[in-house]
Amino acid sequence: MDKKGFSQHISQQYNEELEQIINRVMTMGGLVEQQLETALVALVEGDSESGERVVTSDYRVNAMEVELDEACTHVLARRQPAASDLRLVLAVIKTITDLERIGDEAERVGRMALHLLEEDRRRSPMGEIQSLGEQIKKMLHGALDAFARMDAEQAVKVAQEDIKADAQYDAIVRHLVKYLEDHPKSVPPVLDIMWAARSLERIGDRSRNICEYVVYFVRGKDVRHTSFEQMAAEATGDRR
Amino acid sequence: MDKKGFSQHISQQYNEELEQIINRVMTMGGLVEQQLETALVALVEGDSESGERVVTSDYRVNAMEVELDEACTHVLARRQPAASDLRLVLAVIKTITDLERIGDEAERVGRMALHLLEEDRRRSPMGEIQSLGEQIKKMLHGALDAFARMDAEQAVKVAQEDIKADAQYDAIVRHLVKYLEDHPKSVPPVLDIMWAARSLERIGDRSRNICEYVVYFVRGKDVRHTSFEQMAAEATGDRR
Repeated sequence: MDKKGFSQHISQQYNEELEQIINRVMTMGGLVEQQLETALVALVEGDSESGERVVTSDYRVNAMEVELDEACTHVLARRQPAASDLRLVLAVIKTITDLERIGDEAERVGRMALHLLEEDRRRSPMGEIQSLGEQIKKMLHGALDAFARMDAEQAVKVAQEDIKADAQYDAIVRHLVKYLEDHPKSVPPVLDIMWAARSLERIGDRSRNICEYVVYFVRGKDVRHTSFEQMAAEATGDRR
Repeated sequence: MDKKGFSQHISQQYNEELEQIINRVMTMGGLVEQQLETALVALVEGDSESGERVVTSDYRVNAMEVELDEACTHVLARRQPAASDLRLVLAVIKTITDLERIGDEAERVGRMALHLLEEDRRRSPMGEIQSLGEQIKKMLHGALDAFARMDAEQAVKVAQEDIKADAQYDAIVRHLVKYLEDHPKSVPPVLDIMWAARSLERIGDRSRNICEYVVYFVRGKDVRHTSFEQMAAEATGDRR
């Protein structure tokens, strides 16, 4: 592993432990990305097999979170990390919480997809939902990529993509509200679609959280609850 | 401090640091409870001043989270805690994340309340929403109490209250769906009420998370993603 930015240790084994943890986060991230992809196929294409698969696979994401949490606790207890190593372990602990919740949201999307009939799907703004889904997939992938390379500047770029995701989500809600006003008999399926869109928007928020942990690791600065401008200034080291 | 269950240290200062952290979590918890209470007054009674207050006070909860996270990192770096002390610090790190998100949900409830007109409120199942709100307040208070006393058995009891909260939430959604079908012109306010109820339900989920961290601290066992029965067995030490 190179360019990860955590200190190189005299103990080869310690290095390997930290490397393994990062690798396992990436494996968990890959599984969560796959869950999101499958949930979107279920929602947009109405593929019920995909819906079932998302719903029945969430336990794997949960198990990975628990295992990784244990591995981090183990490193904290035995290696007593300091400075960037400590920040790395803390960033991992927070990241896996968000990944697990992203898995939950993907499961919700899959569950909503299973409720929908083909005619519900035809009458929905599925093109817009697919665009939102693509944007969210891009954000999650970008956040995991920034995490893998511990690249603070990329993390800021990905976090800023949330503005676009929020705008897409708002437009979908507006369309669905209008549709509900005109088609009061379609309330349950339209609400299912609304909940699914909401879950996608939340996955964007959580991808943004992961980006914030990357900046925290690289710069040692907590950028939660700050503006995009402040986050960008911290990420480039340009602190005003 | 007594009965907290973390080891007594030779260093008086170390004990004080851990105590201070717990006390600050309780202060943060108190503020979040107050935010929830204020949000409910805004929603149920239509008090717009309360709504404004929740929305403009969330930054205080956020600031507390960042400060407490820093204090925990400081203890991890300088004191290199092990065993129950380490579990305590990790339980705090996770608890404050949930408390911060509870603050966000309370803010959302306040924001939805500000959108509603008096007539929207009159036509809503406000009695049921108030009952759900009371249940959620009870859960949050119980979770914080279990945390303050590090009482695993109480934590399990509080977590089990989530079953009731979920049932109350489901009933509210069913009523609102029926109402929407009959009153298509009321879509936006009814959706606002639905989002607010959803936020309350989520606060219940997060209170349950806090209970799980209490069991983790006391028993050293991760009970996330397990059944209530397994959680209860772990909390009482009755492991089958």
